[in-house]
Formats: sequence, C-alpha cells, structure tokens
Amino acid sequence: MEEKVSSYKFPIRTFACDFSERATLPVMGNFVLEAASLHSNEGNFGHKQISKDNVTWVLSRLSIEMYEYSFCGENLTVQTWIEKVDQFFTQRCCRFTDSNGKVTGFARSIWVAMDIKTRRPLDIRKWRPDLANHVTDEIACPIEKYAIIFPVNKVEPVMNYKIRYMDIDINHHMNSIKYIEHTINIFDLSFFREKIIHRLDIVYLAEGLVKDKLELYMQDVSEEEYLIDFKKEGKSICRCRVVWTPIPPGNEVVQ
Amino acid sequence: MEEKVSSYKFPIRTFACDFSERATLPVMGNFVLEAASLHSNEGNFGHKQISKDNVTWVLSRLSIEMYEYSFCGENLTVQTWIEKVDQFFTQRCCRFTDSNGKVTGFARSIWVAMDIKTRRPLDIRKWRPDLANHVTDEIACPIEKYAIIFPVNKVEPVMNYKIRYMDIDINHHMNSIKYIEHTINIFDLSFFREKIIHRLDIVYLAEGLVKDKLELYMQDVSEEEYLIDFKKEGKSICRCRVVWTPIPPGNEVVQ
Repeated sequence: MEEKVSSYKFPIRTFACDFSERATLPVMGNFVLEAASLHSNEGNFGHKQISKDNVTWVLSRLSIEMYEYSFCGENLTVQTWIEKVDQFFTQRCCRFTDSNGKVTGFARSIWVAMDIKTRRPLDIRKWRPDLANHVTDEIACPIEKYAIIFPVNKVEPVMNYKIRYMDIDINHHMNSIKYIEHTINIFDLSFFREKIIHRLDIVYLAEGLVKDKLELYMQDVSEEEYLIDFKKEGKSICRCRVVWTPIPPGNEVVQ
Repeated sequence: MEEKVSSYKFPIRTFACDFSERATLPVMGNFVLEAASLHSNEGNFGHKQISKDNVTWVLSRLSIEMYEYSFCGENLTVQTWIEKVDQFFTQRCCRFTDSNGKVTGFARSIWVAMDIKTRRPLDIRKWRPDLANHVTDEIACPIEKYAIIFPVNKVEPVMNYKIRYMDIDINHHMNSIKYIEHTINIFDLSFFREKIIHRLDIVYLAEGLVKDKLELYMQDVSEEEYLIDFKKEGKSICRCRVVWTPIPPGNEVVQ
C-alpha cells in the first residue's frame, strides 16, 4: 500500500516562471493535479485503474494559498494526502515546501467520482469503501475551506476567449488549470510587480468544450479581492476568487 | 569545464500533454530552451554570467523536427551541444531520446549575443573567443537547416491576440515558445487527431510587448504545410512554418 502522505519533487524550470523569475500560480495548480494523479495511481484508485469501472475523478473545487512563490532553479516539494472521504466527494490537501524546508503554501481540492456513462456522481463509500483507509490527519491543512464565490452580474465582459487546442485535456474538456491561466491574464502586469496572489478559489460548474466562446466577467470586492465568472451562452461554467497581498519580504522580484 | 554534449532528463508530466496524452510541441520548445540555459550556465556563458557584461542571448531562429511525441509518464532525454560559432551567432542543436533509447526528434537554434545597452549584436569571436572551444561534431544533427519563411499577404487574420501576463518572459517580451502555442492554437482539433507536427520553423524578427495587439495570418502551402505570420501594426514580428505528417505507427492516440 502507498504512503498516506506522498511526496513529490518538482524542479522549477525557466518555463514555469513569469517575468519575475518566480513560478506562476497555474504551475502550482499543475503540481497539485500531478501530485494527486501520482498519489492516486500509487493507491490503485487513479485514472487508469478506475476507468475500468467507467469512473473518472472530476475536480469540483480548488483552493491554493501561497505565502511565497519559488524562484527559477528551486526544487519544490509537494506533499499530498486525503483529508476526508464523504459520500459524494473526497477532500485532498497539498503542502508546498521549498529547498530550505520552509512551507510556502497549501492547497485544498474536492473531487467527485463520476460515472462516465450516467454522468452522475457515485456514492464513494459504496463504490470504493477502501478509500477511507487512505484518510490521514498526519499533516494539518491550516487554510480556510472553500469560499462561496458569488456570480458576477456585469454587462460588459473583461475578456472574450475561444477554447482552443492547448486548452483541452484528455477528457476533451477545458483543462482545469487553463481557467486559472485565463483568469490571471486579465490582470495588468502592475499587479504582479507589486503583489502576489495570496489565495485562489475556483469552482467548476460545467464543462468548456473546444470552440466554445467564453465571456469572462470580473468584479472587484476590494483592492485585493476579485471575482471572475466564466460564462458560456450566459451561464456560469466556472467561477474564481483571487486575493492579492503585498510581496512578502524575501520574495521580491530580483530585477 | 562542462561536457561539450550535455544531457538532461525531463519527465513528461500530465500537464505537458494534450488531449492525446502526448507531450505538445511547445513543451519540446521549452525543453530546448531549458537545456540551452542549463548547458550555457555550466559552460560559464549563461544568462546570469553574461549579463555582467551587459549581454544577453537572443533566440533568432528555431527549428524542431519530431518523429514521434512522448506519452505522459515517459522520461525524455534532451542532449544539447554547440554545432558552430559564427561571427554574429551560435548554432545550437538538440537531440531527443525516449526511455527506450529511440531518437524521437532533433532541434536547431540560432542565438545572437546582444549588447543590452546598444541593442546591437556582438561579434562573438571577439567578445568570447573561448566559445569556439565548446563546438563539437560528436553528434550529427541530420535535420535540414532553417527554411526561408515567406511573409503571408492575406487581408483577413485567422486570429487576433493581445499579449498578456502569461506570455511575458524575464526580458518583458513575449516568450519565444508562446508564439508556438498561439500558432498551433490556430489549427482545428481534427489536425491533431489525424496527424502530428513533423516540423516547425520559426524566425523571430521583432519583439512583442505586453498589451500589444497581434494579428495572425495564415497561408496553406499544401495540405501539410502552413505559414503563419504574426503582425503588429502591419509589420511581421515572427513567422512560422508548420509541416504536418500522418501519425507514425506506434505513436497513435490510445483512446
């Protein structure tokens, strides 16, 4: 059996970094999903294994809280574990640690086990009662649970986006992390010069398919907090909350 | 002193793959640049070292030729070396090898050493005569040298693109590989289901800056060959040639 807490190392490559030479938020999201994938494969409940049962894991919510972002050349450790198995979803956590052993962030994610044929969520406790054995509280995840993200009722979108090849995942849907890329692309470069994204909450409501034309609406809750709503034909398919904070000491842009 | 041919391993992560679970062309481009960066750092002529002389390496041309694309979970080896040092540029090559030792592709790149203050190319032989010592013909690079890419004279762009945060590199220019991402995003998903990109040639003519509005023009030379021209205010800043080929046996999409 796999370890209840698994640990993976990801070197921070140049191409994972933005103009400030720090890893981007979408890269953190990619690491969360990759760690989840590797950990579930080791535990025999990964994509390949459960697709034999016509089941797939669907990411429903993701929250990432970062205290600082790794610079290019760093070696980031991502630990992941299951915090809870409920009737219709599992709660998975991640902890990010830099090469010096400093904890730089956490993530929470909620996953639904979906029956591929009926497109309905499965009762996880009946389908795979063994998943409960993977739950651990060995590491605490101190970040807040998921925020409620209200819809944005604005007339004018801040961005239009047509879903294309690079956005599409193995299920032929818009990749979960691509929503984060498009979200942060809304912000002016000046935000990234002066602040970091302290927290992102994202909830996935419906699927984006190739050629879909999306409209992104934004509302500022405060100077630090923004809501972004991805709409397709007027209906929300994904909603985000982005919270900015001043760049912490030691994480300043070098240039 | 570093090895004349350096070798780097890159695991193919889920987030490096498209819907077919194969690594994408832009990922190959990222590996080429990362290998170049690591190799030049080892040889003491990398970005950090030469910036002390107010010099930076500017990618002028890139050609990538792939026989097949690695699947997710593979471990790709990228070897890189300098084939030639000319007065105003160096020619760097790469070879891709999969976990079974099969060569899956090659790349060629041309780099100019630019004086940051004057924005003019340096005479490399005078500036760093030691670079000639790094040249090797230990591995042959069998792919054709750079194609001449003609401008596209069309009235209607196939895509409009505004340069945003995720596009920008440490020099505050559009990242070289982002041009490749936007280029392949032009193509319909059906191309990627039936073919692979056998060869990409790209030439960088001018800089794209944040908020620049680009127009992408495309011309088909044949059913396999396409030219893409990135224009900013009517002037080409980057031109690409994309050559498709049927998916080779063994590299088919599994699903």
